[in-house]
Amino acid sequence: MKPTRVVFLVFPNVTQLDLTGPAQVLSRLPNAKVDLVWKSLDPVQTDSGFALLPTGTLDEVTEADILCIPGGFGCVDVMHDDDALAWVWSVGERAQWMTSVCTGSLILGAAGLLEGYRATSHWAWRDYLKLFGAEPVAERVVFDRNRVTGGGVTAGIDFALALTAQIEGEDYARAIQLGLEYDPHPPFDSGTPSKAGEQLVKQVYERSDRMAPDREERVRAAAERLAGR
Amino acid sequence: MKPTRVVFLVFPNVTQLDLTGPAQVLSRLPNAKVDLVWKSLDPVQTDSGFALLPTGTLDEVTEADILCIPGGFGCVDVMHDDDALAWVWSVGERAQWMTSVCTGSLILGAAGLLEGYRATSHWAWRDYLKLFGAEPVAERVVFDRNRVTGGGVTAGIDFALALTAQIEGEDYARAIQLGLEYDPHPPFDSGTPSKAGEQLVKQVYERSDRMAPDREERVRAAAERLAGR
Repeated sequence: MKPTRVVFLVFPNVTQLDLTGPAQVLSRLPNAKVDLVWKSLDPVQTDSGFALLPTGTLDEVTEADILCIPGGFGCVDVMHDDDALAWVWSVGERAQWMTSVCTGSLILGAAGLLEGYRATSHWAWRDYLKLFGAEPVAERVVFDRNRVTGGGVTAGIDFALALTAQIEGEDYARAIQLGLEYDPHPPFDSGTPSKAGEQLVKQVYERSDRMAPDREERVRAAAERLAGR
Repeated sequence: MKPTRVVFLVFPNVTQLDLTGPAQVLSRLPNAKVDLVWKSLDPVQTDSGFALLPTGTLDEVTEADILCIPGGFGCVDVMHDDDALAWVWSVGERAQWMTSVCTGSLILGAAGLLEGYRATSHWAWRDYLKLFGAEPVAERVVFDRNRVTGGGVTAGIDFALALTAQIEGEDYARAIQLGLEYDPHPPFDSGTPSKAGEQLVKQVYERSDRMAPDREERVRAAAERLAGR
């Protein structure tokens, strides 16, 4: 039986749940082979105090059935990394599904893969998608042809179940959902800006300003570089 | 400022989302220091096709403010591992919070830390808690004094937000929830046995029978060993 090659890009300061959530779901696709890919096999530091170990390098893993790009503050560096972008473009172009979670969609965009597509991203970064010719959509999971993009971080679980249903059927996805006891009951209702209110939105933006103060300039510069290619 | 030491046990065939979900949340506690702990620093294979890299060994990391034990099919081996159980007992006894996600509660139980406590676990394993003197509770997150247990896999995110609110207040937890865009919209409503229906429940049990055919005997044997200590 042919493997289902599920390939995640990893990079320094990745938001690890962007990929570990979907990996828990997509690793249950029939005969799935999961890869975490970066420039070397050295551990890659995440945003959560521990490192992830790549299973292969950009040179080694050159094909995917599902390519999935996670996000995180490190995305602003990946958007300016020619080797990484060339890999994303090349693997993505030949993949059956080109996907992302959170700000990973901006990496897809910077690689030139979202022009003319509807897509989503983390709510605080979603509008930047326009810079790459994509149409930002305020939904948790957005399908447009073979591009599938998820919203911020935890949206990756919803994204992966939706994609699994698309590939293997709804009952297959439902069984995984039951196995993962995915019947979410957040203790609070503050998961979107409109529900959380201005004060908390301000706090999240302030944290972004501390973590990636130059993010807007860098995203704009990545879009200009794409336009010049 | 004193660090908040958030310590996760990892072990072969751990369900990685049991710990990567909570780690994404708990790493945002003030001055958090996250550790993933096992017998050596060698990569530990998870259930999702990639390995996690411990940050410390059982000998090196001997104190925690929050001890969190994840689950997964590998739990049946940990329940019979004297070194691991002694570590869980010793670190747990002195931790401010003794916590688990999914079948990690059975490891807490096998270490002797849940006798007389209300607790939860993955729905398909929850009744085994009785063997360790705990009272199984069909809720997603259960607080009983300083024991906090979460249900299956994805319940770890709800658990971690609830614990964060307990430690740092509700607004602090809400800001993290907004940052992680945790406004879940599962594409299906099949996250519990009653919602999923008999056929899917049967499928999940059949998978457990393939992955851990001797799980009931091994949990019972662990309970007998605990009773004999």
